[in-house]
Order: sequence, then structure tokens, then C-alpha cells
Amino acid sequence: MDWPEDGRRRAFIEQVRPAVDCGRSAIKRVLGEAVDVEADVIVEGHERIACMLLHAPVGGTSWISVPMTPLGDDSWAASFVPTTLGRHRYTVAAWPDTFATWRNKLLRRTERDDIAIALREGAALVRAAATRARGAEQGALLAYAATLDGDGPLEERRQSALTEALRELMAAAPDRAFETVYEPPLEVVVERPLARFSAWYEFFPRSAVEAPARHGTLATAARTLAYVAAMGFDVVYLPPIHPIGLSHRKGPNNSLRATEQDPGSPWAIGAADGGHKSVHAELGTLDDFTTFRREAERLGLEIALDLAFQCSPDHPYVGEHPQWFARRPDGTVQYAENPPKKYEDIFPLDFGTAEWRGLWQELSDVVEFWIANGIRVFRVDNPHTKPFDFWRWLISDIQSRHPDTLFLAEAFSRPRVMYRLAKLGFSQSYTYFTWRNTKQELTDYFTELATRRDYFRPNLWPNTPDILHEYLQTGGRPAFMIRAALAATLGASYGIYGPAFELAEGTPREAGSEEYLDSEKYETRRWDLAAEGSLREYLTRLNAIRRANPALQSDHTLTFRRIDNEKLICYSKHSSDGTNVILVVVNLDPHHAQSGFIEMPLDDWALGAETPYQAHELLTGSSYDWQGPRVFVTLSPAECPACVYRIHVRRTSSERDFDYFA
Amino acid sequence: MDWPEDGRRRAFIEQVRPAVDCGRSAIKRVLGEAVDVEADVIVEGHERIACMLLHAPVGGTSWISVPMTPLGDDSWAASFVPTTLGRHRYTVAAWPDTFATWRNKLLRRTERDDIAIALREGAALVRAAATRARGAEQGALLAYAATLDGDGPLEERRQSALTEALRELMAAAPDRAFETVYEPPLEVVVERPLARFSAWYEFFPRSAVEAPARHGTLATAARTLAYVAAMGFDVVYLPPIHPIGLSHRKGPNNSLRATEQDPGSPWAIGAADGGHKSVHAELGTLDDFTTFRREAERLGLEIALDLAFQCSPDHPYVGEHPQWFARRPDGTVQYAENPPKKYEDIFPLDFGTAEWRGLWQELSDVVEFWIANGIRVFRVDNPHTKPFDFWRWLISDIQSRHPDTLFLAEAFSRPRVMYRLAKLGFSQSYTYFTWRNTKQELTDYFTELATRRDYFRPNLWPNTPDILHEYLQTGGRPAFMIRAALAATLGASYGIYGPAFELAEGTPREAGSEEYLDSEKYETRRWDLAAEGSLREYLTRLNAIRRANPALQSDHTLTFRRIDNEKLICYSKHSSDGTNVILVVVNLDPHHAQSGFIEMPLDDWALGAETPYQAHELLTGSSYDWQGPRVFVTLSPAECPACVYRIHVRRTSSERDFDYFA
Repeated sequence: MDWPEDGRRRAFIEQVRPAVDCGRSAIKRVLGEAVDVEADVIVEGHERIACMLLHAPVGGTSWISVPMTPLGDDSWAASFVPTTLGRHRYTVAAWPDTFATWRNKLLRRTERDDIAIALREGAALVRAAATRARGAEQGALLAYAATLDGDGPLEERRQSALTEALRELMAAAPDRAFETVYEPPLEVVVERPLARFSAWYEFFPRSAVEAPARHGTLATAARTLAYVAAMGFDVVYLPPIHPIGLSHRKGPNNSLRATEQDPGSPWAIGAADGGHKSVHAELGTLDDFTTFRREAERLGLEIALDLAFQCSPDHPYVGEHPQWFARRPDGTVQYAENPPKKYEDIFPLDFGTAEWRGLWQELSDVVEFWIANGIRVFRVDNPHTKPFDFWRWLISDIQSRHPDTLFLAEAFSRPRVMYRLAKLGFSQSYTYFTWRNTKQELTDYFTELATRRDYFRPNLWPNTPDILHEYLQTGGRPAFMIRAALAATLGASYGIYGPAFELAEGTPREAGSEEYLDSEKYETRRWDLAAEGSLREYLTRLNAIRRANPALQSDHTLTFRRIDNEKLICYSKHSSDGTNVILVVVNLDPHHAQSGFIEMPLDDWALGAETPYQAHELLTGSSYDWQGPRVFVTLSPAECPACVYRIHVRRTSSERDFDYFA
Repeated sequence: MDWPEDGRRRAFIEQVRPAVDCGRSAIKRVLGEAVDVEADVIVEGHERIACMLLHAPVGGTSWISVPMTPLGDDSWAASFVPTTLGRHRYTVAAWPDTFATWRNKLLRRTERDDIAIALREGAALVRAAATRARGAEQGALLAYAATLDGDGPLEERRQSALTEALRELMAAAPDRAFETVYEPPLEVVVERPLARFSAWYEFFPRSAVEAPARHGTLATAARTLAYVAAMGFDVVYLPPIHPIGLSHRKGPNNSLRATEQDPGSPWAIGAADGGHKSVHAELGTLDDFTTFRREAERLGLEIALDLAFQCSPDHPYVGEHPQWFARRPDGTVQYAENPPKKYEDIFPLDFGTAEWRGLWQELSDVVEFWIANGIRVFRVDNPHTKPFDFWRWLISDIQSRHPDTLFLAEAFSRPRVMYRLAKLGFSQSYTYFTWRNTKQELTDYFTELATRRDYFRPNLWPNTPDILHEYLQTGGRPAFMIRAALAATLGASYGIYGPAFELAEGTPREAGSEEYLDSEKYETRRWDLAAEGSLREYLTRLNAIRRANPALQSDHTLTFRRIDNEKLICYSKHSSDGTNVILVVVNLDPHHAQSGFIEMPLDDWALGAETPYQAHELLTGSSYDWQGPRVFVTLSPAECPACVYRIHVRRTSSERDFDYFA
């Protein structure tokens, strides 16, 4: 075996955390979010070591160092907060800390002769350190050295050697000649806060119809923006806004034949007038899009576009780049199929083509095109039907130039596939939330997700244009309130497909189906935004609560709590400084009131059994005085199927938030 | 981000198992032991893939390929059995299996036109495969191709396309142009079977005294070899056989002063007449050692030497290589110390020396010296007091030239340190077994060890010259029987320090101490090998049982079983082919008989509740007819504190072992 470069590098770094697959994938953070690094480091015998966290942006020329603190059990910790978007590297350096080893022995020496000799050794170490120091530190070290092997009384010299001041001086001038650095460094992708905390609203601009028109435009849809902004959403996600193919166009309710009036599916992208870089003529022009996007910005909204990398048979790519499509032996292009089903309105791109480089480059250009047109958020359609390495390259490549760009993966697939896409770089991911409705299902699933927090950011959707869950079909308006509360509090990021959601649209295409009847995917739908019974106010309040309570702006502290009713689910979150504590109780039964006792986690909140505390229920504005570990709650579907409590402890006669970790 | 070499390599290999720390350390096997490889591989959409296990000895020029079998859930499996000692690499290649994808779709096609077109596609794939085949296979493929797009009836052609024969032909001529290979490859260190299955006997040759001498020699110790071989041990481990220092020599019971008669500690290595490459003059010469070693070989024993990399103050290194030792400011050499304790008879080697290369080289030469003198097994003293990277280099370097060399780590340290040494290459490791005496302690500890089977091979010692556990001090002869049975059956490798063990020597230096009174470490001890009450016969029987029952020659199948008495522990092992099933029950109470019901794992053994089966208790030779899931046993300390049952099922009137996995 090869000799190591220097066998005196004796500190052995076992593991650095956090890491995904031992560093094969990067972890994720948002700007302002700390990376709390821990390392397990061992060395032979009774040697002491010192550790340093090293971090730098990728492409940076030198490491930034942060001294690490020993936690015991060979573990060391330090944190850094990346200050720029993009990729950063981090790793750990460790070295034998000769001074600490010497000092630790001195503490335990008892014989005068030993102490005297040790002080001479120590003086030599301190003098050596002085050569690594400057200015006042150097002078101080030399002074200590002179004392240590000077003529003073032994005990005074020993005390001097053991001062914290000397320890600090020595720690600041370490001998790192024989440091070990953990290789290869780990990586963190730092994205902007929207990656972690975001409320999404999806709608079809073409449904923003104003009579006598049959098709909305970006201009008419701009009015929807105001409606959405008023509800407090952050991101407006539009299904594809591109020209729609005519060949094999789908009709209402996914029928195989479309009439002239039928607009077709927005995901059948491409017609004579353009493809992925064009705007559907009936929606408007590119200038209209710019106007629309600027209006969104004015309202504090971001637009998310849908990246659906597939083509209708009429897409310009079919004629311009025939090699990008698989061909059948009869020369016709291979349409999408999963035999015996055929999707003749879609031509999938052939990623096995010899011209893969040109294909990848064009798809990247599509993204760059929309970035140049002001878009920084993309929802990606079915990424699991395109090669994994393609996404790893695309996201990383785009983010290298535009580190503020976010990608949401819409992949309803096997868990392994969904997690892999997140590892490969998707900023956020759709989840199984829609199909997790019972207390056990929700608890199990979010417990599973919690173990993947370092790379998987869930975005919870109670409904999408493809998914109208049975729970919403049968639960009535309360079901919508329940699922919205769950999504908005379990998830720092959540989204709804509206106005179908707030108008509690629950009619499936047929019994047993998860498709909407008269789905907006295949026709325009007129929505009465002012309809009575709209959950608009409710969503507005939920979004306001999220914005006002930092606890809800991250998933890291999600903890399920015990409540003695299977229909009631209870969980809490808290802000990182502990001052904002939110406890949520949701009645999962949309038909009946449910009651139960919550086991309040007083220990977690440093509350004694006798300490009174207050709960402000933020949806209704009611306040409650609670005390002790058992609190009784009743939730009724009609009035308030979900309670979002902010927990306070009055420390003085004036109300003050309490310090969670006091 | 960099473009991949070829974006058409679409199979994505998530993980390959087994691996230690994602491949940062190698796994271990012995010759003849299979490496069962699994990989998780995903690809986009509904594509099918094929996977191949690749393996080769390190330094080999080309991979050996083994087709992998899909297990479901994206996992693929294949095995290989390394046929040479040393390091081997293994990894997985995966590629889009165009034929399998095509075939899978054909199975589900229903429309004639679709089938016809698909058959033409298939014919093209088959013809392409024919270019990768030769001889009869090529001809066969071409024949199939001709049929597929020939003029025959559609259904016949379809059936032809779906035959297993064609599937096999295509699988044997895969298109691997776009294969992905998991990087970097994983490694396995293949050692000889003794690494896994070995019974060790430690004794001090100098105690093989024949009056009127006071000190045994290698010649007198050769008689002990016959005694040890007769008991059925495999390895004889000798404490250091080198010259012993005079300066600060320890006297009996670790006293600081030795008289002229006192032999000193064998671990205080080095005197005027030599160091680590010399034989203690009173033991004999190097030629005497060769004679001793050959006698061992004749008896079927291997000699294990003790590598204690430290020096007495009189070691030649002190004068020849002063730089290899730390120096105190007064110029004296730094002796071993852990203040306030001093070990003035030991000078530790200074691995922080600028001359580390010379030091490492010399230590390696010491090992090579004894290898040249016929030794292939080394027990390493306190490896955790020398740098980790040193061991990684030494073991790997020595094994690169002598892959049959084994290293046993004697490191009683933190678990992390012990596991790290194993990961770095130690073939076997001492464990906490000595301090695990209750049922819970044993079960917990061996359950923990089971998760580390791929790199940590436990060698279980009920006693060592340093450790006389309280259990043995107070339990009398039965305690020794109990601990021997546990060690010999829980561990495929185990060892005892004799004759102290079989003569049930249980007197500590003082109450509360784990040191032996009049320890052989500091004086010679005369042992009466023929003493009445010796456990010699018992150990002989245990070793014979181990040799006759493959189940006990590995730890991989160790499974704890339920028995309803806290003083009784029950566990089983079985051979890999399932024909040898051993069930062990041990009474952990050395003072009282204990009884209880075993919950027999009938399901595991494919036995119905009504099926009678036999248990041969191998220590006593008794047989029992059992039936059903609850079996009552009584174990008494005096007669048989441990029962080792071989389980049989009579399938015919003549007795036959049963197939565990039938």
C-alpha cells in the first residue's frame, strides 16, 4: 500500500456530518440557515486533538476556518452560515494538539520533579507558538514562556501554565503542520429562503375568462394575481403557457376527440407558432407575459412556470430535430405509450438519441430563455420520466449561473425515485401528502420525511389538477379546511390548485376516480371567486399565520404530540431561538366534532406542572389559560376543524413570549 | 457543472452493498466465503435495465462479470466467491435493456397494427444483438430476427418473440454501449479461513519449567504444544518472546522492584542482546524457535506472536535510533506515563518523530522478519496507542506481499476505536465479551456486533493475563465451564489464556482487582497440567464440537432465542446450506441449577407443531426427542452448565439431518 504523505498526521477523522450518502450528494440549506457540522475524530492513546471546520464557496480560493468545540465521545462541532447562494464546500481539519496533551498531563502531575520538567517542555511549546503569533499575542506568549521555565516558585509557574488565558493564546496559534483534512469535502447547496418557506397557488390563466371571450388571457389573468396576492400566497404556478398541439388534441374529460372549441391540454406543448419558448397565442405575446410577470412582482408574487419536457406532434422540434424523437419502423414518430394505453397527443423526447448533447443544450436554453424573461422558479413535470443524470446536470448547470433559481419536482413515483431526484438537486418535491389522511398515515409519513431533511424539502399539495382525493370528494367544505390546515402547518412549503380548492370543488369525473369532472386540464372553467362559502378568508388567515410565526417557516422542528383520539392529530413546531412555539391540533373527521386530551410536552417547553401558560388560537383569535400536562380540546368541523395555538408563558404581568429552551 | 461523458448512460446506480462507510473501508471475507452483492438501480420511466456484477482481484487486468438477478423494488443481486487471498474489487454495471423494455411492452400490446410494428422493431434489436454474438448464438439470433419481421402469422411471430430462448439469447449478447459503472469500486479483503474460525490458546513458554530450572525454554515449551494440540486448538499465541529489559524491571505482582531472579514483563521488550527481532536468551535461540515452530506445524498448530511496538529502556533502538523516542527537556527519554502513573519500564515509540518513515519501515521489517521465520499470525498489543494510519499502512502493506498473514487487535478502548481498527484491516478483534456476563449484556452486545459482521471479526476471550473477571473469581469451576461454552459457541473465534483457565485459577491480586495474583506477567508459574478438576477434557470436547459442526464456524447466523429464565441464555447457529443446526443453552448461574422453557423457532426450521425432532446434546452425548414449540430444560452447574444441541429431524426410519431451509 502506498505510504501516506506524512505519517505524523495522526488525527483520524472518522466521519463528518451532515452528509448524504457519505458525501455523494450535497445537503441543502437556505441563505441564513446554519450548517451545524459535527465530526468524529480519534487519535491514538491519550493524545489530545484540536479540530477546525473549514468551509468555502465552491470556486473560492481559500478556506474559512471555524474552531470546533468538543462535545465528548470523540465528537466535535461548529457551525457556519453561508452568506452567498450556490454551492459551498465544508470539511474538517484535525491535528494533534500537543499543548492540550501537555496541559492535560500537567493537571494530573503530582511530583515536583515531574512538574519542573513538564514546565520546561511547556515553555518550549509556548515559544514555538510565539513564532506563529504576532503583535500582542506573540509578546504574551513569550512572557508566559519566560515564566514557565523561569526561576519563580514552582506552584506559581504551574498555575500560570494552567490559566485559561494561556490556553486561549495557544489555541489561537495552533501548530497545524500535521493536520489531517477529511477528504473529499462535503457540499451544501445554498438556495434562497423561498426554497424552504413558500405558499404556492396554481391556476389556469386561460380560465380567467371575461365574457364574451371563451379563453382567458394573461391580461385577464392579471386580475387573478391580485386575488391570489391578497390571500397571502408567495408563488403563482402556471401550467404550461405555450402553444398547444392540434393533432390528437384531447377533449373535455380526456376524451380522444376535441372539437374546434376545445383548448386541449396545456401539457401537449407545441404548435406551428412555437414550442417551449413561445406563449400560447390566445394567452398573449411575450410582451404580455412580461407585463403579467411585472404585475406579479408588484404584488409581491413570483411566477413559477411548468417545465414539461415533451412535445405535441405539432411541436416545431419534430420537424427541426427529428433525431430527438424515437421512430417506429414505419417511420412515424413514437408517441407516448404504456401499452396498452396510448397517449397520441404526446411525443416524448428520446434521451437515448445520438444527439443527446444538442437535446440537453436546447432544454437548458429553454430554461435560460425563461430566466431571461424574469422567471426564477420552475415546477418540473414528471422528472422521473427523464434521465436522472440529465436533471443533475441541468439543475447544477443552471444554478451555477443563476443560484437563485428553484426547481420543484412533480414526481409521483417510488420513494427511492423521489428521494433520488431531491438528492440530485431539486429544491422542493411533491410528496405522498395527498394520500396520507389518517393520523397514523400522516405521522408515519412525516416521520419518514424528517430523516431526509438535509436534502428533501416537501411541498404539500392537498389537491392538484390531476388529483382530487376521495377525502375531498366526500368530506365537504370541512375536508378542504382540514387539508389546508394540515398542508400549511405540517409544511413550510405548501400549495393548492385553485380556485377549485377554495371553492371546495369536490366532484370527480366518475365514482372512484381521482380526476376532476370537467377538468380544467381539458377545458376552461369559469370560477366565481366571490362565491359564498369560499375558503378565501380561511386561506388568507392561514397564510398570515405562517408569515407571522417563524416556527412555521421550517420543517426542522416538527414533532408529533400525543392526543388521545385517533381522529385528532397534534404536532408542534418552534422557531430556532425558541421564542415562537406553535401547537397544532386538527380534527381529521370532516363530519363530526371530536374531543380529546393533549399530552402537553411541558418538559420540552421547560414548564413546570404548576406553571400557567396561555394558548392563543390564531385562526379564531381566542385565548385560553392552560396549566399542566393535560389539556382538553373540542374541534368541530363546521366552525374550526383545526386549531393553531401559539403558546405563551406570562413571566410578568405584561405578556411576554417565553424562551423555549430556558 | 461538467457535462457527463455520455448522457445516454441512463441507468442510475444508487447504492452497492455490502459496503463499509460507502466504500471508504473494505469489507472482509475468507476464502470460500461468498460476497453477496446487491445494488439499487433506477432508470427513468418504464424502461427496463440489466445489471452485471463486476469483480476482480486488485491488480487484475479485467473484470469478471456475473449477471445480476432482479429482486424487485429496484434491487439486483449476484454473488461471487473470491478464489485468491488478498484484495478484490467489486462494483456494478447497469444499462438500459432495450430488448427487455421492448419485450415488456409487446406482452401488453393488443392491437394488431401495434404488434406488427413492434415485431419489426424487435427484429432490428435482435439483428443488432447478432452482431455482438458468434457461432450458433449468432445464427439463432438471425433466425429469430428473420421470423419476427417475416411473413408468418402474426401470433406465431409474437409468440416467437416472447420465448424464453430468445430472451436468454438476447441477455447473453447485451448492448452495453451505454452502461453506467458505479464508481469508485468497493473492496473486499479476502483472508484465509483461520481468520474466521480459530481456537486460540495463550501460554507463557517461560512457565514450561522443568526442575531444577526456573525458566522454561522453547524446548520445554514444545511439550506444552502437544498438550494444546490434543485439546484441539488451532493457534498458540505467545506473549513476546524477546529479550526483556533490566532497567526498572517489574517484580512479582507488578512491584516496582525486581530481584535478580525475577524475569520481568515480556512486554518490556529489549535488552543488550537484542530487541524485537531477537529471542530471549533464556528461551533459546532463533534456531530453537524454528524447531519450536516446526513442532507446532507438525501438530497442526499455528504460532501467533505478539507485536508489542514499545521498548524497554535497554532496547537497542534507544541507542541506535534516539530520534524514535520523545525526549524530556533534561535529555532523558520520555517513558510511558498517564499522570500521575508512570511506567518507567516502557519507552513508547514516538510516532510524531521527523524520522517516522524510518520507524515505520523498521516496524514493518520486524513483521517481515518473523514472517520469514514462518509466522503468519500476529496478535497486536494495544494498537490504539499507535497511529491509525500506521496500522492501515502496515497491515495492507504486509498483506500485499503475504496475504495469508492475520492480525488480531487487542484494543480495549471505546467502541468507535475498536471498530475503526477493524475497518483499517485487523483480521480479528478482542471484544468486550469478558465484561458481558448477564443474558441482557450478552444479547445486546452480540446484537451490536452482528451489524458489523462485514468488517469486525470478534475473537472472544473469557480470560487474558490482564483480565481475571469477577465472574471467574467467584463462580468456581462452573463459571469457567460457562464462559468457555459461551466463548466457543457465540464466537467462531475464541481464545483462552492457559493453563490458568483450564485449571480454573480464580484468585485475584486483591479484592476488586481484575489482575491475577502472582501474575505470570511478572513471574513464572508452575502449572500442574494433569491436575484433577482440569477442564482439559471439557475444552477438548468443545473444540471437537466446533470442528464437527460447520454451524459454529461462522458468526453470520447467530440468532438469540427466547427462553423464559433470565439466567438461561439460548441461541442458535446454522450452516449456510442449512443441514447443520446448533442450539445452545447456557446457565449463566454458576451456583444453582436453572430451568426454563425454550421457545423453539419451528417456523425458522420449517417444522410443524406436530413434527417430532431430535436434539443431540453434544457435550454429554445424550439424545432427546422433542416436539412442538416449547421445550423444557434444566441445567445444573456441577454437571452441565451448558448444552450444545444438534437438531435433527427424522425423515425416514434412518436418521438424517434435515434441510433447514426446505
